[in-house]
Amino acid sequence: MAKTNPGRFFEDYTLGQMIEHAVPRTVGAGERALYHALYPARHALYSSDEFARASGLPQAPLDDLAAFHVVFGKTVPDVSLNAVANLGYAEGRWLKPVYAGDTLRACSEVIGLKQNSNGKTGVVYVRTSGMNQRDELVMEYVRWVMVRKRDADAPAPVAVVPELSKVIDPRDLAIPEGLDFSTYSFAQSGEAHRWSDYQIGETIDHVDGVTLEEAEHMMATRLWQNTAKVHFDATFRPDGQRLIYGGHIISLARALSFNGLANAQMIVGLNGGVHANPAFSGLTVKAWSEVLDKAETSAPGVGAIRLRLVATKGGSPFELKGDDGKYLSDVLLDLDYWALMPV
Amino acid sequence: MAKTNPGRFFEDYTLGQMIEHAVPRTVGAGERALYHALYPARHALYSSDEFARASGLPQAPLDDLAAFHVVFGKTVPDVSLNAVANLGYAEGRWLKPVYAGDTLRACSEVIGLKQNSNGKTGVVYVRTSGMNQRDELVMEYVRWVMVRKRDADAPAPVAVVPELSKVIDPRDLAIPEGLDFSTYSFAQSGEAHRWSDYQIGETIDHVDGVTLEEAEHMMATRLWQNTAKVHFDATFRPDGQRLIYGGHIISLARALSFNGLANAQMIVGLNGGVHANPAFSGLTVKAWSEVLDKAETSAPGVGAIRLRLVATKGGSPFELKGDDGKYLSDVLLDLDYWALMPV
Amino acid sequence: MAKTNPGRFFEDYTLGQMIEHAVPRTVGAGERALYHALYPARHALYSSDEFARASGLPQAPLDDLAAFHVVFGKTVPDVSLNAVANLGYAEGRWLKPVYAGDTLRACSEVIGLKQNSNGKTGVVYVRTSGMNQRDELVMEYVRWVMVRKRDADAPAPVAVVPELSKVIDPRDLAIPEGLDFSTYSFAQSGEAHRWSDYQIGETIDHVDGVTLEEAEHMMATRLWQNTAKVHFDATFRPDGQRLIYGGHIISLARALSFNGLANAQMIVGLNGGVHANPAFSGLTVKAWSEVLDKAETSAPGVGAIRLRLVATKGGSPFELKGDDGKYLSDVLLDLDYWALMPV
Repeated sequence: MAKTNPGRFFEDYTLGQMIEHAVPRTVGAGERALYHALYPARHALYSSDEFARASGLPQAPLDDLAAFHVVFGKTVPDVSLNAVANLGYAEGRWLKPVYAGDTLRACSEVIGLKQNSNGKTGVVYVRTSGMNQRDELVMEYVRWVMVRKRDADAPAPVAVVPELSKVIDPRDLAIPEGLDFSTYSFAQSGEAHRWSDYQIGETIDHVDGVTLEEAEHMMATRLWQNTAKVHFDATFRPDGQRLIYGGHIISLARALSFNGLANAQMIVGLNGGVHANPAFSGLTVKAWSEVLDKAETSAPGVGAIRLRLVATKGGSPFELKGDDGKYLSDVLLDLDYWALMPV
Repeated sequence: MAKTNPGRFFEDYTLGQMIEHAVPRTVGAGERALYHALYPARHALYSSDEFARASGLPQAPLDDLAAFHVVFGKTVPDVSLNAVANLGYAEGRWLKPVYAGDTLRACSEVIGLKQNSNGKTGVVYVRTSGMNQRDELVMEYVRWVMVRKRDADAPAPVAVVPELSKVIDPRDLAIPEGLDFSTYSFAQSGEAHRWSDYQIGETIDHVDGVTLEEAEHMMATRLWQNTAKVHFDATFRPDGQRLIYGGHIISLARALSFNGLANAQMIVGLNGGVHANPAFSGLTVKAWSEVLDKAETSAPGVGAIRLRLVATKGGSPFELKGDDGKYLSDVLLDLDYWALMPV
Repeated sequence: MAKTNPGRFFEDYTLGQMIEHAVPRTVGAGERALYHALYPARHALYSSDEFARASGLPQAPLDDLAAFHVVFGKTVPDVSLNAVANLGYAEGRWLKPVYAGDTLRACSEVIGLKQNSNGKTGVVYVRTSGMNQRDELVMEYVRWVMVRKRDADAPAPVAVVPELSKVIDPRDLAIPEGLDFSTYSFAQSGEAHRWSDYQIGETIDHVDGVTLEEAEHMMATRLWQNTAKVHFDATFRPDGQRLIYGGHIISLARALSFNGLANAQMIVGLNGGVHANPAFSGLTVKAWSEVLDKAETSAPGVGAIRLRLVATKGGSPFELKGDDGKYLSDVLLDLDYWALMPV
């Protein structure tokens, strides 16, 4: 028997299957600093322990997206090693902040399976849970990927496509225990705009751009122990390029969105997301946002804001899809998330 | 109103104006390790907690220049986003070491304003203070930058150019409480040369060179939350190059200066500094120093040494300016600082 | 007297000489995170504090190879600054795990000297010891390097070549106090294969590849305070390339070997190692292993496995040397080590 992991193929998944992902990971001060070195992250709640304490948290948490990347990275050897495409996300919720010293692990349940008509691939839906060392859920999300079949002649499973919410009901968002924005310092956070200053339908061009570097996306992707070969091995693709992990673009765009959304402090919900086009080293990424919705929360001074975050490699801000309904070629990412903001 | 920060223009500054800079930052073990990964830093007081304790400090501080970069980075969105040029530094003093867990913030006072004769730009002088979470001053320095006017027709302010010391009087240098070099280990520090071994006028070629990489200067500059577009966006300049943050060259040159100045442990004063020519990826940086002055201090075993630190991208060591009094094209940096050394 | 370190030349070494290497180094959470960013390291004992505790250790140690690199880095200014070639390693043993907050220092004893017949160079053998802040030995190893003579006319020393073990007797391996694999979780570690599943003579192709980047190898090598010029200065070699520190390839290959050897958790012995060919940026590194031997240990549930780890930049796995007995041109590294594995 070969000792190396060949990854799972489509026929290796069964409905209801629970997969415990390997290699738990302790995070700390190093991951936090590296996040600030790899992305232009400036949200004050994650930059300053003092700001976090003034907001009712014990200290600055690990960036919500870093927690997501660690959990996501755990799933790669079991879910996407033989994936052809990462098709979508839904029902993502951050349930507990992650602090230095926490150890994260992940497991996934197969909640949907549907073979494609070509008989060569199929779509696998998994609900992934990230847990800390106290077995508390820190986050969960649904992801679906297109996976190759090992054997095209293997019978197709009964098709089951889960019903997924297009948007998380804001009443289902988890507000971190103790979070309180009633004494929030807008001078320290970097911008004066509060929740009530944002209008549904408003769009924001985040202006700044970052040119992608091989060393940076590889260090980031490795830090999350994501093992997908295409991110690291220039000989893997015929064109000699390394495909950049989609999550690198998510983190980069989110960090760029500080300029205009400095007070969208915590990400608590991931309604959906599409990696519209692949990203490679040398491209310059910019970002724009659109306010999709707003909701009140029960926490003092805390409102929820639903944002579309779009990353591009060119073109004009606020252009997303062509007349054919397809993403424009310059669009890298279309993300739909809920954030918490001082009201 | 646009939600993004357009930066301040020349006419937005008024004499005596106090600017509280946003996004406080907690530093720790991650920033310390990254500093050692990004620069060939080897000064023992910063490398070893044990060496720092033997020198009377509670543990190794964050590198003095890292503290400077964090404070400097905070000022960029308010001071230099629309700057044409960073013209100079003066009266920089490190007042308290920064330790893991400290949270830094910064504010600046406008101490001078002078419109240029072209009517399109002006020079802004600010005195910047960095504070920790106990509101203790950790450092202060004066910087002046040339800033664009938004409107060329805006009236010129009354010209005020502050009188700045060319050199900090060594009696005004702040020696960290408890610092004691009387049992200093020259075997551990890496060189046998003590304060008394250096002569005023002596020059030292630091020999080693480091070739600049895009990923490295961007990671460093991001780590300090410096947001100036030219450092990150290759599409910003017509020549497709990313201008390297001047502070990256300062840290690189200082680290290279270990070889010959291993015992110039702590930087306590910044008398002045000029970024003589821009630096770009691919250049190889070398450094040389000149001993400008020496002074005794009241701390046991501790002397002060005033050094010129020059970074170059070529040419011969010890060559600085041409017959026209201008910096040679190979000179990147001319820095004048006070350091503490065992006597 | 020049203030900079010219390094030692062959005639500067004497048999029995003890060299205390400078610049002690405190390691912590930052070095740990950077190790995970720079290498695709996934061994659970180093990734998770919880996994380490379940294995009887107080927390996850710094990667064994990171400890080696720190100790090795200390020796460079004294041992290999004027080295022509790094010829070999032997009798390397890890004696104590290194934890966050530990401060490492190193000293070396000259145990052999032999001038080459050309009269221009000689071979220096040193036994290097790494100590922590409690003066406990954390590791030791023998290394021999070819060093230039300052003066070809200097008399040759009496030739002394130490007798070195080709392989460390497994009874001499140091098992960390308390290590216990009797309740080991193979689900968490990432692979089901235990010590008893590996056969002597078995070979494993680790499949994955990583393309080398300048910024990554320089950051890694700097992090270990290795000062050899050729790794950092592109102007140093006539071909404008930066030679990659051999230890970067060791760490990369070891991390790649997770895929097939996920349970070879701790490195405890270095029997030998050859950097067969130089490595440069742009190459894609793959790795394969061969099981050379197995041995029982006295620790509960812990077996020792002796592995050959080969890193390549091309060619087919399992090919090592040509008919002439020389390493093939695609082989970068041939390492022989002992690891600990659950039985």
